Amino acid sequence: MDPLSRIEQALNAAVGQAEAPGCPPLLAAAMRASVFPRGARIRPRLCLAVAAACGEDEPGLTDAAAASIELLHCASLVHDDLPCFDDADTRRGRPTVHRLFGAPLAVLAGDALIVMAFQILADAAACAPSRLGRLVSIVGRSVGVPRGIVAGQAWECETHADLAEYQREKTGALFAAATVAGAAAAGHDGEPWRAVGEKLGEAYQVADDLLDATGDAATADKPVGQDLTLGRPNAALQMGIPAAIAHLASLAAAAAAAIPPCAGAGDLRAVINSEARRLVPKALSAQAA
Amino acid sequence: MDPLSRIEQALNAAVGQAEAPGCPPLLAAAMRASVFPRGARIRPRLCLAVAAACGEDEPGLTDAAAASIELLHCASLVHDDLPCFDDADTRRGRPTVHRLFGAPLAVLAGDALIVMAFQILADAAACAPSRLGRLVSIVGRSVGVPRGIVAGQAWECETHADLAEYQREKTGALFAAATVAGAAAAGHDGEPWRAVGEKLGEAYQVADDLLDATGDAATADKPVGQDLTLGRPNAALQMGIPAAIAHLASLAAAAAAAIPPCAGAGDLRAVINSEARRLVPKALSAQAA
Repeated sequence: MDPLSRIEQALNAAVGQAEAPGCPPLLAAAMRASVFPRGARIRPRLCLAVAAACGEDEPGLTDAAAASIELLHCASLVHDDLPCFDDADTRRGRPTVHRLFGAPLAVLAGDALIVMAFQILADAAACAPSRLGRLVSIVGRSVGVPRGIVAGQAWECETHADLAEYQREKTGALFAAATVAGAAAAGHDGEPWRAVGEKLGEAYQVADDLLDATGDAATADKPVGQDLTLGRPNAALQMGIPAAIAHLASLAAAAAAAIPPCAGAGDLRAVINSEARRLVPKALSAQAA
Repeated sequence: MDPLSRIEQALNAAVGQAEAPGCPPLLAAAMRASVFPRGARIRPRLCLAVAAACGEDEPGLTDAAAASIELLHCASLVHDDLPCFDDADTRRGRPTVHRLFGAPLAVLAGDALIVMAFQILADAAACAPSRLGRLVSIVGRSVGVPRGIVAGQAWECETHADLAEYQREKTGALFAAATVAGAAAAGHDGEPWRAVGEKLGEAYQVADDLLDATGDAATADKPVGQDLTLGRPNAALQMGIPAAIAHLASLAAAAAAAIPPCAGAGDLRAVINSEARRLVPKALSAQAA
């Protein structure tokens, strides 16, 4: 099965647990709307690619690690979109979860997705129980305190904060989890993979800044021009578009260079290069070519 | 060390992780305010009592299981108190977390506490890795979908729901986790302990109803009279106070009778009986005597 199908199947099985008898149907629907239709699934695809490069031996555990990270990403989007944060109306071209179901169910859907992220790890690790502790720690560290995505989001509530730094950390945390957990799911030491994820997270942040600075509101999967409007840090606005594109390429190259020795290093390097090209908004890459 | 000191120490260590360098200080403060000063800690004390009855052999793991359940309980209180749910001003006689820190930090503190609940299990299970999968599943099931406390809370968002039934489920889920996880942390099969927790959860719900129906606003640790005002189900209002006190006693007796054979069954029965007496609001037990 191709990586994207594996990811969708794992996510569908996870969300399906909320559709069991006895669960409030609106909560189940809000959870499904939080996870589907899919976004780029870039973090779980990265997780699967790293596991494959490490010679994956327990695919069910890899799928769970990838789905766990995507569930946490989706939960963070739903909570970040809430009226008390960004008060966003749309996400991936559709109304946000709190617009569809109300803020209470958006809070609860996010909570339930966080819990689900750990439950699916525990279920899948029955085949390799000795790997579970590391996986829970890796995933927990990326999303919690002191430096996970929840902490990253909380810097927005502080009066003195280097927002650019913390935005980078917030994005980097989950990308690092994707590479570290991919290796750990395959029974490898994950830590040597952290730098790969962190660099890719930085590259993705620059791509996101490019999209916000130059994107077309009609085709983008979220509102554009928000950073300028809200005075938020944006690499493309700060360094200019050509320099930002070059910066993105150099971050992707640094990520590829950081790949630890492993059987599938060559294939993974190719995936990262192709992904980096895909990240540059199409109109801009045509311009730059 | 006495049970309560063990619990406070474990909770303090967990929340202390948010106070590490690099964590947004307001998030750390909001997490601390979510967990301290302490409430009755009834769920973690139950967890420790069950582990002791089972002949606890890994006290660090028991402490983590107990603290995990209390962190999840605290997270649910912080989220339930939010403006979009109960919009509560006070909790345990102090301003609620969102009143002190604002709704964004209350959402994030709850999220971070949920994540922390799983992280401390993983850390503590290094001494007994084979027990981690069961513990994550037990705790996850009690708080997530389809029938955990998040699902219980979500029934309030449905138009057709038997609120009394789901309130019972919501309370019962975390009490059941306390008994099942206490046994599992001690290396026992936890499932035979589920009925003990469920019955105690029901008893606690009746005690809570009694407090709401008859409590003194000046001494109660939360607002009283809310069920009558908001038209919520309340056993004391429905069956009358003497019948509710008798019902509470019979539920506690059923819990004690459900204790599976184990070395410390006698001691645990005594703890449950003393706890049940403590649950009846003092003024009422004096009246009934």
